[in-house]
Amino acid sequence: MKTELDRLMRERHLDALWITGAGNHNPALVYFTGVANLTHADLIKKRDEPPVLFHYPMEREEAARTGLACRNLNTYRLQALLQQAGGNQARAAAMRLAAMFRDLGVRGRVGLAGTSDLANLYPVIVELAKQAPDITLDAAGDEPILLAVRATKSPEELARIRAVGRISTSVIGETAEFITGHAVHKDRVVHSDGRPLTIGQVKSFIQMRLAAAGAEMPEGLIFAQGRDAAIPHSTGNDKETLRLGRTIVFDFFPCELGGGFFYDITRTWCLGYAPDEAAALYDQVRQAHRQAMQLARPGIPCKDLQTETCRLFARLGHPTVLENPQTEKGYVHNLGHGVGLNIHESPSFVTIPTNLDTLLPGAVFTIEPGLYYPERGMGVRIEDTVTLGQDGKPKVLASYPYDLVLPMKRSARGSHPARAAKRK
Amino acid sequence: MKTELDRLMRERHLDALWITGAGNHNPALVYFTGVANLTHADLIKKRDEPPVLFHYPMEREEAARTGLACRNLNTYRLQALLQQAGGNQARAAAMRLAAMFRDLGVRGRVGLAGTSDLANLYPVIVELAKQAPDITLDAAGDEPILLAVRATKSPEELARIRAVGRISTSVIGETAEFITGHAVHKDRVVHSDGRPLTIGQVKSFIQMRLAAAGAEMPEGLIFAQGRDAAIPHSTGNDKETLRLGRTIVFDFFPCELGGGFFYDITRTWCLGYAPDEAAALYDQVRQAHRQAMQLARPGIPCKDLQTETCRLFARLGHPTVLENPQTEKGYVHNLGHGVGLNIHESPSFVTIPTNLDTLLPGAVFTIEPGLYYPERGMGVRIEDTVTLGQDGKPKVLASYPYDLVLPMKRSARGSHPARAAKRK
Repeated sequence: MKTELDRLMRERHLDALWITGAGNHNPALVYFTGVANLTHADLIKKRDEPPVLFHYPMEREEAARTGLACRNLNTYRLQALLQQAGGNQARAAAMRLAAMFRDLGVRGRVGLAGTSDLANLYPVIVELAKQAPDITLDAAGDEPILLAVRATKSPEELARIRAVGRISTSVIGETAEFITGHAVHKDRVVHSDGRPLTIGQVKSFIQMRLAAAGAEMPEGLIFAQGRDAAIPHSTGNDKETLRLGRTIVFDFFPCELGGGFFYDITRTWCLGYAPDEAAALYDQVRQAHRQAMQLARPGIPCKDLQTETCRLFARLGHPTVLENPQTEKGYVHNLGHGVGLNIHESPSFVTIPTNLDTLLPGAVFTIEPGLYYPERGMGVRIEDTVTLGQDGKPKVLASYPYDLVLPMKRSARGSHPARAAKRK
Repeated sequence: MKTELDRLMRERHLDALWITGAGNHNPALVYFTGVANLTHADLIKKRDEPPVLFHYPMEREEAARTGLACRNLNTYRLQALLQQAGGNQARAAAMRLAAMFRDLGVRGRVGLAGTSDLANLYPVIVELAKQAPDITLDAAGDEPILLAVRATKSPEELARIRAVGRISTSVIGETAEFITGHAVHKDRVVHSDGRPLTIGQVKSFIQMRLAAAGAEMPEGLIFAQGRDAAIPHSTGNDKETLRLGRTIVFDFFPCELGGGFFYDITRTWCLGYAPDEAAALYDQVRQAHRQAMQLARPGIPCKDLQTETCRLFARLGHPTVLENPQTEKGYVHNLGHGVGLNIHESPSFVTIPTNLDTLLPGAVFTIEPGLYYPERGMGVRIEDTVTLGQDGKPKVLASYPYDLVLPMKRSARGSHPARAAKRK
């Protein structure tokens, strides 16, 4: 939580933080400013002092709205600096930064953060070493300090994540209604005029409903059917028609408009009916999900949750990444990841010796076991975003039913298309 | 254009490019891969050789879909490297990068590009200098090479920008219909039940229609009325009710889903009627827009377009940034900017001696003069995205009418609310 920042800066011998980039889709900056319409800003925070936001003159009102102490970049005469710098833009920018640090009395070790364009920024960083020789950018390479701080959430942050969660589950519900309201022809989902309902059309529907709800999905979404569902990061083939009895992995990770807090949830659906094999995989993934919810308690090493999930799946006869990190079938990924202003953030569940992350009250993370068999054309994943409560128990932040089968509401021509398809 | 890249690499003594980050909302990477669902990738391009895309195993299919030569990051055993690196993740990542460069036979000067999280990447860059001593990252600080290459567009890129432009103008048209279909009470725009129509509701409508059209607006949008319209980067106050006779600046800059090509267009509207003063400002801005379209010819220094716009506005009695770079009224910004995978890219219209950009056939840029008077509560801007054709003439890529006044379609209670409001 943000309240730990100064203490952690002291522990890491950081005299200041410098956070740069735009005011949207920039987690490190948004952590301090909220989503803000700033095309570029520099935030400098000295240890034990409140942050100062440097902004462009045209964006003075957006900057003021953040509630932070603000300074207008206009006060540093960039054109004069450019002349001094012989026209070298990187040098002029570094001279301006050096002046900003000087004005705030910053010297010593400075932590760099923010999302930025490297081709522009890297030369500035190199020049900064010359223009501000009393400043050293931290390159220790351990977990970035802001990720450490952001690994637990304040009640207000939890409320915002829960709100995005409610939007997510409501759009998932609308999507289920949308799909199951369609007609069926043989094993294909079709519009009333017989045209096929495609994954691309479902994605458009999701996009629209999400926009109506006032959120966005900057990282896209996964709506992958059959064999594609068995490739965890396949987003699905937009041209493909929805079909009965195939596993559909719908992994949905929207965020607040402008790049605020994320939510992350996955449901696996079979339309009309589930083949026995898919239903069996699904039950096993549910079992792994329940086991993880039971194991998630304060102080448990995060990687233990992954190890125990691997062990469960191995006992059930599946290959896992525990005995073969390269496996592309069975259980092929990690159990989860922290969620916040980044879709992936701390804590980490990676099973490497150097991962010392433990579950802490206030952590927000996913639990997302899955089983994948590309050659059998099926994949299953169940994912919830969970917080570890102050009572030591995990709570799903926005719950949604776990039904595998979505019954189609209109049977085609009075027959049972699902079963007919199955017999083929 | 991409065809110039190898020549430009030679001119700048660059032996390779290294582009890093995600496969979406990452212009430098997307330039080679297209929008791709890659959570992380490294693209290395040696001079005079095709680029190679390094990707994670779970994203092998998305990587393959780019059509580029692909290598699986799995082949570099990160866990073993982490042990060698004593658990230092930045060092392990740098060791992997050094091996990747070695495998491709890269040495010498390497240009860094991409959009990335600095807190994670900076320590890797510092370590890379130790792990790959035969590689030097370029820090010359001139215009990034990919921005130079991207300053002119191929016919296929032009077609994509034009397509986003068509989506933009169609959503603007729908928005005009949506607003003017509302009722009026006194000088306020209201729903049929009398509740006020707010800017927030208009923005939601825009968001939904854009989603339906299959594009997104990662940088937000501007829909600012009255005094806010006079602050060029104010996004507008969501709680404010739309009113007749106020200037509304609607600046719309959507892009292809996932962070592809942008379009950028602004219209200024007055609902119902335009006050004389607003109409006069509008005519002058139109005049500046027309002048810029006439001046835009191959070879003209871009900054001359800005200078001539300032001169025109000064002759008309307005303060401009030419004689006072700090002015916050009159003409307070630049005439335009290049548009492409970044909403702001080359060419630049900034009037500094070091800006040597000239207009080239194939360039895509905005022309967006404006006049702003915060204390009078009004601002006007007209913006189009334009390409300089091979015939040497500028063409608006997606045209939209320039009407200042949007007549409201339903008069309230048979009166003339606009005029009634005006008389007050």
